[in-house]
Amino acid sequence: MRKGILDRLNAGEVVIGDGGYVMQLERRGYVKAPHFTPEAVVEHPEAVRQLHREFRRAGADVLQTLTFYSSDEKLQISGNINEAACDLAREIANESDALVAAGVSQTPVYPTHRNEAEVKAIIQKQLDVFTKKDIDFYIVEFFKHVEEAVWAVEVMKTGGKPVGATLCISPQGDKDGTPPGECAVRLVRAGADMVGINCHLDPLTCVRTVKLMKEGLEKAGLKAHLIVQPLGFHTPECNHSGYTTLAEYPFAMEARAMTRWDMQKYAREAYNAGIRYIGGCCGFEPYHIRAIAEEMSPERGILPAASNKHGLWGAALANHGTSFMTERACREYWENLLPASGRPNCPSMSTPSEK
Amino acid sequence: MRKGILDRLNAGEVVIGDGGYVMQLERRGYVKAPHFTPEAVVEHPEAVRQLHREFRRAGADVLQTLTFYSSDEKLQISGNINEAACDLAREIANESDALVAAGVSQTPVYPTHRNEAEVKAIIQKQLDVFTKKDIDFYIVEFFKHVEEAVWAVEVMKTGGKPVGATLCISPQGDKDGTPPGECAVRLVRAGADMVGINCHLDPLTCVRTVKLMKEGLEKAGLKAHLIVQPLGFHTPECNHSGYTTLAEYPFAMEARAMTRWDMQKYAREAYNAGIRYIGGCCGFEPYHIRAIAEEMSPERGILPAASNKHGLWGAALANHGTSFMTERACREYWENLLPASGRPNCPSMSTPSEK
Amino acid sequence: MRKGILDRLNAGEVVIGDGGYVMQLERRGYVKAPHFTPEAVVEHPEAVRQLHREFRRAGADVLQTLTFYSSDEKLQISGNINEAACDLAREIANESDALVAAGVSQTPVYPTHRNEAEVKAIIQKQLDVFTKKDIDFYIVEFFKHVEEAVWAVEVMKTGGKPVGATLCISPQGDKDGTPPGECAVRLVRAGADMVGINCHLDPLTCVRTVKLMKEGLEKAGLKAHLIVQPLGFHTPECNHSGYTTLAEYPFAMEARAMTRWDMQKYAREAYNAGIRYIGGCCGFEPYHIRAIAEEMSPERGILPAASNKHGLWGAALANHGTSFMTERACREYWENLLPASGRPNCPSMSTPSEK
Amino acid sequence: MRKGILDRLNAGEVVIGDGGYVMQLERRGYVKAPHFTPEAVVEHPEAVRQLHREFRRAGADVLQTLTFYSSDEKLQISGNINEAACDLAREIANESDALVAAGVSQTPVYPTHRNEAEVKAIIQKQLDVFTKKDIDFYIVEFFKHVEEAVWAVEVMKTGGKPVGATLCISPQGDKDGTPPGECAVRLVRAGADMVGINCHLDPLTCVRTVKLMKEGLEKAGLKAHLIVQPLGFHTPECNHSGYTTLAEYPFAMEARAMTRWDMQKYAREAYNAGIRYIGGCCGFEPYHIRAIAEEMSPERGILPAASNKHGLWGAALANHGTSFMTERACREYWENLLPASGRPNCPSMSTPSEK
Repeated sequence: MRKGILDRLNAGEVVIGDGGYVMQLERRGYVKAPHFTPEAVVEHPEAVRQLHREFRRAGADVLQTLTFYSSDEKLQISGNINEAACDLAREIANESDALVAAGVSQTPVYPTHRNEAEVKAIIQKQLDVFTKKDIDFYIVEFFKHVEEAVWAVEVMKTGGKPVGATLCISPQGDKDGTPPGECAVRLVRAGADMVGINCHLDPLTCVRTVKLMKEGLEKAGLKAHLIVQPLGFHTPECNHSGYTTLAEYPFAMEARAMTRWDMQKYAREAYNAGIRYIGGCCGFEPYHIRAIAEEMSPERGILPAASNKHGLWGAALANHGTSFMTERACREYWENLLPASGRPNCPSMSTPSEK
Repeated sequence: MRKGILDRLNAGEVVIGDGGYVMQLERRGYVKAPHFTPEAVVEHPEAVRQLHREFRRAGADVLQTLTFYSSDEKLQISGNINEAACDLAREIANESDALVAAGVSQTPVYPTHRNEAEVKAIIQKQLDVFTKKDIDFYIVEFFKHVEEAVWAVEVMKTGGKPVGATLCISPQGDKDGTPPGECAVRLVRAGADMVGINCHLDPLTCVRTVKLMKEGLEKAGLKAHLIVQPLGFHTPECNHSGYTTLAEYPFAMEARAMTRWDMQKYAREAYNAGIRYIGGCCGFEPYHIRAIAEEMSPERGILPAASNKHGLWGAALANHGTSFMTERACREYWENLLPASGRPNCPSMSTPSEK
Repeated sequence: MRKGILDRLNAGEVVIGDGGYVMQLERRGYVKAPHFTPEAVVEHPEAVRQLHREFRRAGADVLQTLTFYSSDEKLQISGNINEAACDLAREIANESDALVAAGVSQTPVYPTHRNEAEVKAIIQKQLDVFTKKDIDFYIVEFFKHVEEAVWAVEVMKTGGKPVGATLCISPQGDKDGTPPGECAVRLVRAGADMVGINCHLDPLTCVRTVKLMKEGLEKAGLKAHLIVQPLGFHTPECNHSGYTTLAEYPFAMEARAMTRWDMQKYAREAYNAGIRYIGGCCGFEPYHIRAIAEEMSPERGILPAASNKHGLWGAALANHGTSFMTERACREYWENLLPASGRPNCPSMSTPSEK
Repeated sequence: MRKGILDRLNAGEVVIGDGGYVMQLERRGYVKAPHFTPEAVVEHPEAVRQLHREFRRAGADVLQTLTFYSSDEKLQISGNINEAACDLAREIANESDALVAAGVSQTPVYPTHRNEAEVKAIIQKQLDVFTKKDIDFYIVEFFKHVEEAVWAVEVMKTGGKPVGATLCISPQGDKDGTPPGECAVRLVRAGADMVGINCHLDPLTCVRTVKLMKEGLEKAGLKAHLIVQPLGFHTPECNHSGYTTLAEYPFAMEARAMTRWDMQKYAREAYNAGIRYIGGCCGFEPYHIRAIAEEMSPERGILPAASNKHGLWGAALANHGTSFMTERACREYWENLLPASGRPNCPSMSTPSEK
């Protein structure tokens, strides 16, 4: 029997999450932006299956069901979709000892009504599907308001499985201005076993926000495991509003994509901040997850399967015939490289839209 | 029975090629850089199958067998690999009416010996495998010396199928200094039905080189169809030596990746230059191929399957709730955007290594 | 008789300061970096005279004596130098109706001793020279610690002339962490008639800090005129430590220099923030001061003499023979231009040194 | 008696030219862009005198009369102006042993008429003034067409003084397409003692063009001294058309300004190319000329007066109190620095206008 998420975290293990599905599947031709709904699980299950497999192969210990924005309100057929999503994740997870996490995200009714009963009914409907399926734990993710996330945690907690909760907020706090420390306290008091941040901002900013959550918990005398699943993009100019306000969103984000070396740095920072559930969100591709796994390999004692096709820090370049290439076969080279964009007519930062 | 490549081109159709396999599979965890050999076709056929499917869905009329660098000299088990590669491409091609092209590339013995017999023997061995399999046409690709490419064309021509030949050279000519126009003439005289450029340089530079080939052919009174399958990266500073000399190669190329809008511009330039076989190479992902197909949809009269998940020029943003997003639902916005890199500490160009 | 500084400010006039002398004279060959001491006033008075004249011609209402860092501790012969500096400023001021301001800056003894008596003795010695000369008012400038600035104000106040006080601090406060609002309160309570910010940070940051000073004064029920004399450089990455920590300081600041259009924007921001004494510091050249004067010309009802050699917003380009040049003869063009650096191998931001 | 220009060059000495007057005087408030006519010599002689003095002090061996665009056709009162310009340059030159060069530039009538007699009459009128004054040699400069420059050389040659001729052309040739080598041959055959390039393009491009001139002369079996007086700006994207087509011209060129270290590199390149008359044009300030003089000090055996206020390669920073500053007191630091622009929203290159 596989070891549960809390057993792993309680034992001090570093758990690696998977990356973002919808943005990667958009590039592969199966998901439509900016809706980012997950109908691919029924329309093209082979594509979802393959991406699950790649993240797993790259080192992810957890596979998340592709149930993002998958409530009836967003999607007429969410019931079927959610069941199919659970089956796909479970199928690939069972090829090895991966865990399956099912996620719920913010509801379309909250911003207009802020009605607790309505929100909870939507979340409950999703939980009902998950309960039928063999899910290992739940993640309440991509919430901009802690209030709604708390309601979601309260519902998911009734499912009898561990619950993680990640907000997509900045160090300045949630959309109502609640500081990250207070958000964390409210989520943990509502029953969350793990709290943290996902999406919307770049890795180092998200790590900074999780640190503020940690400080809030410590001041309140509370304990919880910490999660971080940030963007895989450089977004230095949009630290509160999130990346959707960037001029490049969603169809010209390429130049902002992080390298594998950026990811190793991020993983180390997250680890040093006390975070033990380290994954990714939009912009993360399988090789980014592999980079986390490689950076954490001294702590974890293992390398992922996909590292068979990758030398640590460019080691595979060592036997290349040209001297300029063999010089790149070392950590120092890649760690210090400031990669050029090849775009001399483009700026390095843009002005985010006002939301 | 499906229409052959020359029938299509002779009829004036625009044929869309697929993108680069090895670099994309490296990111997915199945190919090792910088060797870029294709053992994935036997080790992880599901991954190759999926990428074939994505390129086809994105609009590619041709699927290339993953036989890059797949000679005995590079790979002990190339025979099996080449057979498996042919089967995979054929399997996916047969799901619809796609063509299968098998490729041979420069040999490791040429730079040291320049021995015609040796090179031809290596190429012949690959052709023998292809002859057993149901291949529609051949592509002699990724040759830096026109002399070796001519030898390869001479061998492949004996296979009785149409032959395309693409060099990875700059407007300044091949590695021996032979100008593109003369290269084209020699390839066509050796029997190539289609000539052009692949890999090593960015799209607009490759189009420029193909134009020089075209001029050379015209001066010589020769005719051939034109192919272009460039890099999917911005590489303004390495116009002769090719992208391997860039400081970012191969593990920090992210910031140079082209957007879908860059690709539409490229496809239009290629078309205007008289090129009718338009595809991609390293750096191309499925959505880049879709962008070519969308740009060429007026000429072709069809949109690819993957356009179901994509509005032309950002049209799907039109119903988004925020005004700054709906303003992005038009061609003018994306065509004029100068995307930021989010990397204020990085330069826009680097100094290529001397080769 | 010319109208005094307080009469002007009390009447609601916009007073324009001059720019930085030492950095500009370094480029002209008369001042040595990083000492930036003003011995040029005796060694090459013609050079100082000419720069005074240029600032005056560009619209400066005030000429500051070149007495920066001119205490005995910095300079053996400061007495003579300070007298000469006063004479030079007065000579040029008297060619029209400009005011002469004499400045004192932070002392070398403060950081080691923090001894009030010592600091006051140094300041008093400088005041003694100023008292002999025909000075219109005093500016206590370039202080990093409000405590030392308060001592200097207390001394200068005994001179019987109006006193302005400008700190070189960031929105985060002075070097001891005193917030800008509290700094302003302390300076005004010590007797300063005008308070504000000079040097160390870019214009918009300095304006922001002055706003915080203003808020502090309002909360304390105090009133004072506001001054701003910022850097003429873009320094987005060094908001607290100041520009000396930038990798480019002091000999490669060129690419950061502001355009005249940046200065018009700055002047307008300063005006909108309620600042009525608007000038410059290091990096300001005469044409930058002219840009302030041109932006403020609707409020002031006059243009400076140097505007005879300058059309507003590029108007002088209107009759140029080429169409691309005449298109530049308008405000819209220059206001929206994002000027290129011509340096594709350089970054847009550097990492400041730790102080 | 001072040593003449040809005696110096014939003896193998490195002669240092001065920088551009009109663009620097525009910033000081005395010249109007884009006309750039030199009426300042009568309106504000003290400003011109001071700039002459600064260039001389920075190491210039030659002071050029401020007679740019100073023909009757451009300026009603050119006679007086040219006389005054000669007197000013002579006055400052006589303070030491500097040489005075008088310049003539392209005429406004050439582009419309291409009439030899008309052009020669205009040039003759300027020469008549120079003949009355104590001029040491002549420079025919800023010609876009070699034909017109040849006519000017023919006229100036009758003055009995050495004649230099500099075109503002690119490596691709003059405006009629005449290659640089041929241009040089024609100018030398017309009587020019020195030939080269001035203005319009950045230093390294200008050096490259002078090299082509040198090759042309060598092939023709001719000899002449070589001059270069380039822009003081980085203009990588406008290699043929010249900097006026840049979007930033003429009022937002700041970010392109060269550092003193760029100038040292340029001076060394020019020297290595065999050029012995090395100066500057638009964008050069006194400290840029000093940088040339410092770079050439081993060859020349002297440092300029202004080096009293400058340590070689930042040496004056060595005694600064902070360690990050003392680390900057060496050649390696400044030579390798890639200076940031502080402008993250601006590109590194712009698209030049079509002329």
